Amino acid sequence: MLGVRLHSVGLVGAYSTKYETRSKKKSWELLREAVDGVLKSVDNGIDGKDIDFIIVSNFSDRFTGLVHTAPLVASWIRARNARGFRIESACAAGGAGLYLAYNLLRTGLARNVLVAGYEKMSMQPSGAEANEVLATAGTPDEILAGATFFSLYALIARNYLERYGATEEDLALVAVKNHENALRNPLAQYKKKITIEDVMKSPYVAPPLKLYDCSPLSDGAAAVILSSNPKKYTDTPVYIAGAGMAFDEPGVYARGDMAALKAAKEASGQALKSANLDVNKIDFFEVHDCFTIAEVIIYEMLGLAKRGEGYKLLRDQVTFFHGEKPVNPSGGLKAKGHPIGATGVGMACEAYWQLRGEAGERQVKDAETGLMENHGGSGGSSVVIVFTR
Amino acid sequence: MLGVRLHSVGLVGAYSTKYETRSKKKSWELLREAVDGVLKSVDNGIDGKDIDFIIVSNFSDRFTGLVHTAPLVASWIRARNARGFRIESACAAGGAGLYLAYNLLRTGLARNVLVAGYEKMSMQPSGAEANEVLATAGTPDEILAGATFFSLYALIARNYLERYGATEEDLALVAVKNHENALRNPLAQYKKKITIEDVMKSPYVAPPLKLYDCSPLSDGAAAVILSSNPKKYTDTPVYIAGAGMAFDEPGVYARGDMAALKAAKEASGQALKSANLDVNKIDFFEVHDCFTIAEVIIYEMLGLAKRGEGYKLLRDQVTFFHGEKPVNPSGGLKAKGHPIGATGVGMACEAYWQLRGEAGERQVKDAETGLMENHGGSGGSSVVIVFTR
Repeated sequence: MLGVRLHSVGLVGAYSTKYETRSKKKSWELLREAVDGVLKSVDNGIDGKDIDFIIVSNFSDRFTGLVHTAPLVASWIRARNARGFRIESACAAGGAGLYLAYNLLRTGLARNVLVAGYEKMSMQPSGAEANEVLATAGTPDEILAGATFFSLYALIARNYLERYGATEEDLALVAVKNHENALRNPLAQYKKKITIEDVMKSPYVAPPLKLYDCSPLSDGAAAVILSSNPKKYTDTPVYIAGAGMAFDEPGVYARGDMAALKAAKEASGQALKSANLDVNKIDFFEVHDCFTIAEVIIYEMLGLAKRGEGYKLLRDQVTFFHGEKPVNPSGGLKAKGHPIGATGVGMACEAYWQLRGEAGERQVKDAETGLMENHGGSGGSSVVIVFTR
Repeated sequence: MLGVRLHSVGLVGAYSTKYETRSKKKSWELLREAVDGVLKSVDNGIDGKDIDFIIVSNFSDRFTGLVHTAPLVASWIRARNARGFRIESACAAGGAGLYLAYNLLRTGLARNVLVAGYEKMSMQPSGAEANEVLATAGTPDEILAGATFFSLYALIARNYLERYGATEEDLALVAVKNHENALRNPLAQYKKKITIEDVMKSPYVAPPLKLYDCSPLSDGAAAVILSSNPKKYTDTPVYIAGAGMAFDEPGVYARGDMAALKAAKEASGQALKSANLDVNKIDFFEVHDCFTIAEVIIYEMLGLAKRGEGYKLLRDQVTFFHGEKPVNPSGGLKAKGHPIGATGVGMACEAYWQLRGEAGERQVKDAETGLMENHGGSGGSSVVIVFTR
């Protein structure tokens, strides 16, 4: 971004519903729970009329039954001076909303921005229909070929495993770790400890990916409030130290390196540079483990591991909860859940709680900096945000 | 907006597909025609790598079969440095995209922004299904009550007619005028001159609204390029002199005045104030005539007529093509067509052509200033933009 940094930007509130397989609430009731919850979460209180921009993040109206949601949110909270709209960037809708909010605030285009993400994927009658909706995040070529995201990430995984000598058991470690982390998260969809054997015995969905390599279909909503005057609303805001967004070729077939997620590399480069931080200074990470392979590759894109060596961080438990660089302490998309529009916003909620020391059993000790990575489709877009106390 | 105006912002290219009832192209082929077309339309040429932000405007993936479109557009035009996302604000998706582009540019967050809107409403098997999709722009209460946009605008129309003594024939004049204007527009969906009698004889859809009071289901795409350094790309850019965006209660039932479109009043107030222009100085208008009643009320919201007297501008032919204040010289949503995501972007295209003297048979003589108004749902959000030569 070219703009002069005029304002520092901080999170002053965060709320997430529990992520669930089949919520009893309607989509808009999930959204409303998050919106009401985030307003109440602000330490010194905030009035709806102080919110001057509303961004709603959401993948598809086939997962909500509702569009034109920003004016609805404004009406609920009596944000009489607000403008805004919905943002969609496939599974990075939440990250894209946060990225825009940060930029509106630092340039003075808004003073207090509400970002709310939601999805009720169980609105579709079954997984088959839900996956048909998800497939629309592919390129026209991929859609016409009948590709699903299972198959696209399987291409990526096969390429990675063959090239770098990682094994399916290495991928399984991501699932094992994130399920274990989710046991400590009361908001997580899954409370189920699993073993490498469980993953290896689960049926192939698209080889080498098995059922337990995949994040689930989820219902849920999350919201944060960002401010260019954060100290007004809380003594302990969580600051955005830097943010990046980048694109890659959206078609997996069109990439020079099929086993890379280049957008995440570029976005994290931008974010860390603008935060003036080295990745080794980051205390914890929430990253987009839609499939186990994605988390492994993201290690490398962020610079936590050399190219082709990401899986070694799992073998050595470096990214486990008690390791040196905890990744997805929340349980990640894999076990916390992946209600798409909410996902990126939920990552920011986790950063808010971790950096305020409010993460309970899953608190990363002495966390001072955190990083989130949220990507869309098979990596055609990525948003990275660096948070500090 | 609070930001200091750092840069002036101008349109440097515009392209629109023909709007059609049933396009032979797939949704993404429509989008691609607009994207390729707008790049070629730039007088001095522009390279994809100069586009650093891409905004795609679109109502529903049920009208496109596609999400995550910004990285796809970036790939088509090789915009290697671009970021972006899709914006949805119901029928104001295009306007919202333009509003954001303008603000990104004037604050230096981007240098050249591509805004592309598209919709292929004929993807739905029939009007019944299409209207089911459109109904999701209502509030949850309206959706649960089974309200359609025909019924919501009928409430507005009945309230207006009963209160102010306007007649159904007055509403018919909007349709007659806009169909006549569309005869001069090679891009328009309808090339059919109609009379007041034709409108009055058309069947009631939701009284007092008849079939010919309604805009059609349409397929189409439109795109513009905006720059903070417009003179680099053309000697005759069209400047954005001001822009406004506002919300109203999204539920018609919840409004103090059911026959007002208050968001449009607030948005036009903001836009005209920031442009430092009186509405009487504006030479032509493109406004959101999704139903004939909307155009009549918009006259009043913009300040072209006193409250309750908008219909008199039609009786006196003030807003006809040869009148003093031409409204919808393009044919408007009513006759040019309403491919939702494209609609607001298409209004900006029309402003570009009119202010460069390139509008052919429908050229408004000596046009120096123009205004577009694009609203979402039944008026829950509105965007107004003022253009100058």
